[in-house]
Amino acid sequence: MRVITLLTDYGIRDSYVAEVKGVILRLHPEAVIVDITHDIGKYDVEEGAYNLARVVRYFPEDTIHVGVVDPGVGGPRKPLIIEARGAYFVGPDNGLLAPAAERLGIRRVYEITRMDLLPPRVSDVFHGRDIFAPAAALLAKGLKPEDIGMEVSEYQRLPLYTVRIEAGRIHAKVIHVDGFGNLVTNVTYESLENAGVKLDSTLEVQVGDRAYRMPLVRNFSAVPVGDLLLLVAGGGYLEISVNQGDASARLGVGKGVEVIFTTL
Amino acid sequence: MRVITLLTDYGIRDSYVAEVKGVILRLHPEAVIVDITHDIGKYDVEEGAYNLARVVRYFPEDTIHVGVVDPGVGGPRKPLIIEARGAYFVGPDNGLLAPAAERLGIRRVYEITRMDLLPPRVSDVFHGRDIFAPAAALLAKGLKPEDIGMEVSEYQRLPLYTVRIEAGRIHAKVIHVDGFGNLVTNVTYESLENAGVKLDSTLEVQVGDRAYRMPLVRNFSAVPVGDLLLLVAGGGYLEISVNQGDASARLGVGKGVEVIFTTL
Amino acid sequence: MRVITLLTDYGIRDSYVAEVKGVILRLHPEAVIVDITHDIGKYDVEEGAYNLARVVRYFPEDTIHVGVVDPGVGGPRKPLIIEARGAYFVGPDNGLLAPAAERLGIRRVYEITRMDLLPPRVSDVFHGRDIFAPAAALLAKGLKPEDIGMEVSEYQRLPLYTVRIEAGRIHAKVIHVDGFGNLVTNVTYESLENAGVKLDSTLEVQVGDRAYRMPLVRNFSAVPVGDLLLLVAGGGYLEISVNQGDASARLGVGKGVEVIFTTL
Repeated sequence: MRVITLLTDYGIRDSYVAEVKGVILRLHPEAVIVDITHDIGKYDVEEGAYNLARVVRYFPEDTIHVGVVDPGVGGPRKPLIIEARGAYFVGPDNGLLAPAAERLGIRRVYEITRMDLLPPRVSDVFHGRDIFAPAAALLAKGLKPEDIGMEVSEYQRLPLYTVRIEAGRIHAKVIHVDGFGNLVTNVTYESLENAGVKLDSTLEVQVGDRAYRMPLVRNFSAVPVGDLLLLVAGGGYLEISVNQGDASARLGVGKGVEVIFTTL
Repeated sequence: MRVITLLTDYGIRDSYVAEVKGVILRLHPEAVIVDITHDIGKYDVEEGAYNLARVVRYFPEDTIHVGVVDPGVGGPRKPLIIEARGAYFVGPDNGLLAPAAERLGIRRVYEITRMDLLPPRVSDVFHGRDIFAPAAALLAKGLKPEDIGMEVSEYQRLPLYTVRIEAGRIHAKVIHVDGFGNLVTNVTYESLENAGVKLDSTLEVQVGDRAYRMPLVRNFSAVPVGDLLLLVAGGGYLEISVNQGDASARLGVGKGVEVIFTTL
Repeated sequence: MRVITLLTDYGIRDSYVAEVKGVILRLHPEAVIVDITHDIGKYDVEEGAYNLARVVRYFPEDTIHVGVVDPGVGGPRKPLIIEARGAYFVGPDNGLLAPAAERLGIRRVYEITRMDLLPPRVSDVFHGRDIFAPAAALLAKGLKPEDIGMEVSEYQRLPLYTVRIEAGRIHAKVIHVDGFGNLVTNVTYESLENAGVKLDSTLEVQVGDRAYRMPLVRNFSAVPVGDLLLLVAGGGYLEISVNQGDASARLGVGKGVEVIFTTL
């Protein structure tokens, strides 16, 4: 167990991420640390959960994922270790870790209680550096979750992925806008199958009070440059895109907007 | 062969780069992954090619460079491995890799054809993660390019560096604006020699309909703080700069603008 | 000695940081390179010094810190190696390294003089890549500072942390605004003790011509969401914050502003 990933809302302008990495390397010099992203919207637990859930299947067996989007730091929410199939998750009990861990399959959940095993700390506002990072380093060194915490029977869930299918219509929403302007919805392959939508068909897509027609394709290049399209992209979710363009700018919408897909 | 570099237009806000790294570490846990940049302008193959060509001479022997700026992903353009003197290049056949590989000297070019050696994939829009990253990891593990692809006789070139020298005037253009506001032109040391320009001389620099006089110096500090200067900087190209200032803001110009240099 | 950190004002959009990393890995393939930040304000030596001083205590014994915020590159300022208790610092002699090195305790200071040990260079404007990176790599390989330079008796200091305490009032200033909008002041724990300020008391905080009352607390969550608070945060400095909000936006002030704290 050498790979430790980091996902936070710390940004990379400050030294916060580096302090987290220093703490890990101090306890476990052999760790291989991989940034997932530090540009989660401040306090946006849902966006963090989406990004963490996307990546977990691509990492090596026994990767330790540290997630810190933590508006309740220093309050009553618990510091957690989730043991899942093929990975550990370390972070606050606020739903951030749950969708990713559930995607792999949760085995056991622990509250971090052995603060005496962690370096002493001067403040109570930086649990990413002072609790989660050293706990992850100890796991990477070979300690078991039960050495660092005690098993608990519940954890905070976060329902990211529910869509409503009614009379062949899929009622969905935009859960993420990526750096290319692609509008990622909460519609999965399974939702499309359940609604009877077929590849290469054309759908009506209602976004706010406007409606568009877009083909469901396999490649951006299936439509001319500049055209709208629908595509189940790398993350496994249906995206509204423009070939070599920015769908968010084109449609004038962003995260959270409701979308209704209808088969024609 | 342990060092794998990544240059993309993915940005670092999303989880895309992390997915690429996860795939590499899953196949080759010993890989040392170095980000070149992920902030290439979206679909800007030329800007990507410039940045990749800059860095290659500084990396260890047998580094594997993965470049992904890929507006034609999923279309007919080929996935390539270029074997150059002291490095491999993996990415789309759209000119992105060519200037860097040519700078080192190209030995052989391969189309990646053995998709059966790569992890199975669910979509056809993320070749960075699904084709180029695993191909690079397999090379790093010791496979030969001919194990993963078949040799081809041609590849897409990208003429980045041609300037026109006429009657002692160098007709050039700005190919990059860096984060300090330096205007990087396509004029090399060799172009300056060919045009008979000498260090410490003063040149007339015509930018659009305005003309400036600037000294060609060796150091920013050769002129007062705030003054314009010309300098063949770290990348080997002539740059228009301001000592401790922003030349792009000062002259009000950016990438692509034509510049004429005249010896006085 | 394997960990080398990098702190610069290069930004991450250009290839500059990657060139630095390539040079290090070429000389010392075993190096573990950690980015502190590359988003220091251009030429802002004080901001760089603050961030470097924050992180050093979190890194492993014998870490080599490379700092490059270097408005005087190519001019008369010396290239330095500072040997401190448990760490080395490599960079320009302009005050950037001093507060961090002093925090650990300075043992000896060297000017880098053995340019013949470094790779040949084509320009004199990129000492981060051409002098500081290879010097750090040579230290990481086991060379001593005296093998690369000669001891000198003085170095440029940078007084970051002085506050004036007068009649129970602390005259301070904002030295950094982090990505959350927290206003980091130059007031340390010690300053608060010297001024007789107690945890959980309320202070009057004068910012420009406005005055506020804020509690000095241990956690953001000690006040309602959206409320102002004072907190000695992870870096050891007193910060003006808003629970789950942006204090800089709320108070309409930024770096450099004067603040007076008065016990009520």
